[in-house]
Amino acid sequence: MRAVRLHGYHQQPVIEDVPEPTISGPLDVVVRIGGAGVCRTDLHIMEGQWDAAMHPPLPYTIGHENAGWVHEVGAGVTNVSVGDTVILHPTPTCGLCRACRAGQDMHCSQSRFPGLDSDGGMAEYLLTSARACVKLDPSTRPQDVAALADAGITAYHAVRKAVPLLYPGTTCAVVGAGGLGHIGIQCLAALTATRIVVVDRNPEALKLAEALGADSTVVADGTHVAAVQELTDGAGADVVLDFVAEQGAENDGFAMTRPGGSYFVIGYGGTLTVPTLDIVSTERNIIGNIVGTYNELAELMVLAQAGKVTLHTKTYPLDAAAEALHDLDAGQVRGRAILVP
Amino acid sequence: MRAVRLHGYHQQPVIEDVPEPTISGPLDVVVRIGGAGVCRTDLHIMEGQWDAAMHPPLPYTIGHENAGWVHEVGAGVTNVSVGDTVILHPTPTCGLCRACRAGQDMHCSQSRFPGLDSDGGMAEYLLTSARACVKLDPSTRPQDVAALADAGITAYHAVRKAVPLLYPGTTCAVVGAGGLGHIGIQCLAALTATRIVVVDRNPEALKLAEALGADSTVVADGTHVAAVQELTDGAGADVVLDFVAEQGAENDGFAMTRPGGSYFVIGYGGTLTVPTLDIVSTERNIIGNIVGTYNELAELMVLAQAGKVTLHTKTYPLDAAAEALHDLDAGQVRGRAILVP
Amino acid sequence: MRAVRLHGYHQQPVIEDVPEPTISGPLDVVVRIGGAGVCRTDLHIMEGQWDAAMHPPLPYTIGHENAGWVHEVGAGVTNVSVGDTVILHPTPTCGLCRACRAGQDMHCSQSRFPGLDSDGGMAEYLLTSARACVKLDPSTRPQDVAALADAGITAYHAVRKAVPLLYPGTTCAVVGAGGLGHIGIQCLAALTATRIVVVDRNPEALKLAEALGADSTVVADGTHVAAVQELTDGAGADVVLDFVAEQGAENDGFAMTRPGGSYFVIGYGGTLTVPTLDIVSTERNIIGNIVGTYNELAELMVLAQAGKVTLHTKTYPLDAAAEALHDLDAGQVRGRAILVP
Amino acid sequence: MRAVRLHGYHQQPVIEDVPEPTISGPLDVVVRIGGAGVCRTDLHIMEGQWDAAMHPPLPYTIGHENAGWVHEVGAGVTNVSVGDTVILHPTPTCGLCRACRAGQDMHCSQSRFPGLDSDGGMAEYLLTSARACVKLDPSTRPQDVAALADAGITAYHAVRKAVPLLYPGTTCAVVGAGGLGHIGIQCLAALTATRIVVVDRNPEALKLAEALGADSTVVADGTHVAAVQELTDGAGADVVLDFVAEQGAENDGFAMTRPGGSYFVIGYGGTLTVPTLDIVSTERNIIGNIVGTYNELAELMVLAQAGKVTLHTKTYPLDAAAEALHDLDAGQVRGRAILVP
Repeated sequence: MRAVRLHGYHQQPVIEDVPEPTISGPLDVVVRIGGAGVCRTDLHIMEGQWDAAMHPPLPYTIGHENAGWVHEVGAGVTNVSVGDTVILHPTPTCGLCRACRAGQDMHCSQSRFPGLDSDGGMAEYLLTSARACVKLDPSTRPQDVAALADAGITAYHAVRKAVPLLYPGTTCAVVGAGGLGHIGIQCLAALTATRIVVVDRNPEALKLAEALGADSTVVADGTHVAAVQELTDGAGADVVLDFVAEQGAENDGFAMTRPGGSYFVIGYGGTLTVPTLDIVSTERNIIGNIVGTYNELAELMVLAQAGKVTLHTKTYPLDAAAEALHDLDAGQVRGRAILVP
Repeated sequence: MRAVRLHGYHQQPVIEDVPEPTISGPLDVVVRIGGAGVCRTDLHIMEGQWDAAMHPPLPYTIGHENAGWVHEVGAGVTNVSVGDTVILHPTPTCGLCRACRAGQDMHCSQSRFPGLDSDGGMAEYLLTSARACVKLDPSTRPQDVAALADAGITAYHAVRKAVPLLYPGTTCAVVGAGGLGHIGIQCLAALTATRIVVVDRNPEALKLAEALGADSTVVADGTHVAAVQELTDGAGADVVLDFVAEQGAENDGFAMTRPGGSYFVIGYGGTLTVPTLDIVSTERNIIGNIVGTYNELAELMVLAQAGKVTLHTKTYPLDAAAEALHDLDAGQVRGRAILVP
Repeated sequence: MRAVRLHGYHQQPVIEDVPEPTISGPLDVVVRIGGAGVCRTDLHIMEGQWDAAMHPPLPYTIGHENAGWVHEVGAGVTNVSVGDTVILHPTPTCGLCRACRAGQDMHCSQSRFPGLDSDGGMAEYLLTSARACVKLDPSTRPQDVAALADAGITAYHAVRKAVPLLYPGTTCAVVGAGGLGHIGIQCLAALTATRIVVVDRNPEALKLAEALGADSTVVADGTHVAAVQELTDGAGADVVLDFVAEQGAENDGFAMTRPGGSYFVIGYGGTLTVPTLDIVSTERNIIGNIVGTYNELAELMVLAQAGKVTLHTKTYPLDAAAEALHDLDAGQVRGRAILVP
Repeated sequence: MRAVRLHGYHQQPVIEDVPEPTISGPLDVVVRIGGAGVCRTDLHIMEGQWDAAMHPPLPYTIGHENAGWVHEVGAGVTNVSVGDTVILHPTPTCGLCRACRAGQDMHCSQSRFPGLDSDGGMAEYLLTSARACVKLDPSTRPQDVAALADAGITAYHAVRKAVPLLYPGTTCAVVGAGGLGHIGIQCLAALTATRIVVVDRNPEALKLAEALGADSTVVADGTHVAAVQELTDGAGADVVLDFVAEQGAENDGFAMTRPGGSYFVIGYGGTLTVPTLDIVSTERNIIGNIVGTYNELAELMVLAQAGKVTLHTKTYPLDAAAEALHDLDAGQVRGRAILVP
């Protein structure tokens, strides 16, 4: 089958033929890919940022945001059947460890992360497990929902954690209205009555943000910290959801958080530098966020099916993976790029 | 009256005569001081660290950890009477703003912080307000409990926030077993069944920690991050309570926090430097902590009266304030130094 | 001034002249009433249901849902001035007890409840306190918002407590779409993405419910428990908000709650009868709800000002109080009846 | 093998020979029983109380509180091996449904409850599943810990849910100091600093309660509601943990709960009868409690291994099951009766 494979860091992935994955364990599932999202993390992987944490064996197939149809199942699989339309939670988990049993899939002691530590979904077929499959209505087109599998649940997970902080009268600043941010805005509008202030460099992205539910928008032109403070009587935002967290956005994000507030780190790439006196004297929190849980993905699909979260996507054939990655890097994708094999 | 007053930064405070404070508003309370704690924050104040945040008019009286007897009350005071033994919440609050009404005294929009932004309690008398007074059993000696007013509730506040994270089977690392830390250890033992691992440079402090409930101790000799990881099967502590957060302790503290765990900053003075990738990929949190609430002070007094929290103190006459400050700075105080006017 | 006064139980209140209230304490506030809501609790008061709990001295003025303009203030009042437009939290609280300091106004150890235990607001003037006043935009008409002061925050309080249980994919059954229920539906729609199923005897009320955000409606005709179960694959609703809780609604409400779910009691008058085996074997909860907090009232005003909660009201002159009470009792008020002095 | 089997309601179970259970699915586990607890629920089963909810096919083997050694495992079992010492979570769960993935094992949509709806552990061998096995130190004697498998986690689960309500200064009333209650008292003492007031008819049980951590005891002689109120300045207990909930204890339990407090139902058999006005006017909650989760059982084993929870047990040979059931019914068991095959 065709697959988008990384042979080395600081170089483009290559599209080449590899054998199809096969079932070996009783809970294995092979999925025929219908849509594979292209994520800023793919760029970070190419730069080697994830090597230390994940140390995947090169070459391998990237792509961690996948939906499609069940192609083959192991003997012990009871929750899906061949032909089912599915969206895939990005990390097949063990179901036995404390984290899995506590509803914290992301901290499973045995999980894999296809596309980061093993072969991913920018290919015709993907090997995953029964626990990762969310069954969808058969009429759903995988390419229309694939971006919910990672961009979606990551944004949703952060918003879900922030909900208790975002009662009426609060302000939530969203930094970055791209692939994740444009979903986060919709989740905020669906789950809270907070005031949503969106910060982005790109005026086009801000227009999209307004259409999706932003109450105010701020151009990230160097005066944006002051602008957010001004919108909040000098205090700062109760919650800042930072979908960028690199190139200085991380320190700006903390700076625009009000005393007693919480700065949610979702993007990455930069380095946060904060005097502990600033943390203590204002009692601010810095909250780490990684991909959401299986249940959160299921919840997000409910929002999507109700039309409360809609994706802005641009599709590319699988063979145009390089173009899609380039467009993302160049800031030329509004919403999310999706590869369709 | 005699008072310990700061005339300039980077110099010792001076003991001199000033007029006694007087009642002007209906909710004012003047307290005769029975004990005033000496805190690392007093050293930080003298270094000018708090000038930007609090900009007190110099000279002024320091001392933000106070207990004594009610000396005079305003016309509208209903909760205490002249002669009552009281411990004082450090920040007289308005009682009308959202934060006060939500049980978040520390974020009161109108609060004062005597000893930081106005005249404090290292003196014979202190002006505070009705809302700051916690009435005590008349037999209580103020000098025996004063350290609970700031060191105590700060440590208690952090522990109280951590309790939901510290179920049986977890590990809590306590960094720093000094004035705050030795109270924090006792609060952990009283409120949780977590394993308590205490980290300190000073072997004497570690001995005290063991006597107070530590399950393991680790000498902070440069191998302590590795030592905490080893004690936790390589994972790190579920919660780290950092009562130091300066001179590198802050980055060590984050490093010894397990994936999904929370690093509580309570001490201050250093600068935290963390790649956002490290925050995101492990989903760790950095939690700011400031002084606790009035209700938390009342709860802590329950623990103290039940003998579950006992203070290790060393008393000095008010006129020996300089000596007390020196001893603290030199690491020669086990527990807390208390000035007795 | 004119006032609506109850001279005995099981009889109509009388409209008569009484002296205007006056300031005696430093935190007292006298408000000129612009709108006073008529509540099912007024009917229950007339029936004597509240006598045992509140034992008001008869005769007294009823009316516990009030808005107007500040007429006179005590010497210590700092948060409002004469002429300010205000909506009144129904229970003036002490601000000093643990409950007040913990954000649980409803459990204040010293609170009054004008209209239940002392003279209320169905009159030209009302005596309240500074802590009860929420300042509004001067352009607000008190009669337009008065119903938020009790019906509003009671409904909002219950919804606010239920929010963490109502993630996407859940179902919330609202029993009773009257004065409180029609606000509750809007609060649910503003704060959650749950599916809202509304149950009422009255088809007109169900039409209003649909217009306000109900996803499904069920006529309470004796088959409604089965209908709610059918809508939820036989399981029952995750949360039931029972704004009726009398005449059998209370046992139906518990019966339509799914295993692991919560039945919120907000209305009253009936008697719940449940085998403890049914509570234990399904691990269902029964949650008591009383009026909300000052902060919740302030939050609700944010929703109202944003147009997310609108009131359906019918105004009557103060002298027509008897007619308004009759109409409410006869089920002839859609939304809320408001007396305008 | 020998097994204790129920052939009909309102009659004694019979000890007879039945075939040993065998492995059929890949995740099946057969355990050789080392200890099987005797529970009040077994008496309720014999009375037919659980027939409507569980409708087990008669005859069947009772016993839902089991520990032993792994005897045989299915092909897909990875977490335990033949010979391992294990304690068994009472409900083998699916691991795939929302409840399992959210850490709410008790609401698993596919769970079995051996001993209630299928063959249980009062026998030489028991069929369970991989997900139900908690591996123990090989030196543990199953008969010493078996009672933690149901009495233990049920008590622990209720205490764990109550912890956030039980800060210093609160009072927790424990009703019933028998098999569950004597564990609940120890869990309260290990996890909170609340004041523990224990209510029981039996002075012997109260003596044991004092030894285990009760701060006060009250004889349930008809004046106990008043006694608890007197101990709490007339207010009632913040939390009531009712391990009895039959024969009137249920209404007494609610009556001794303070305004704003929570009444936890854990025992069962009686019928709660409460006017909704009493629920609403005081905003009290009634909290259902069933058996705890796998993670909670693991946490409880940590407490047990640390010596913070110790069991008071009385062992009987398997063939003396009738005697054990009789002793329990007659109130002649302090702590828990355990059958040892």
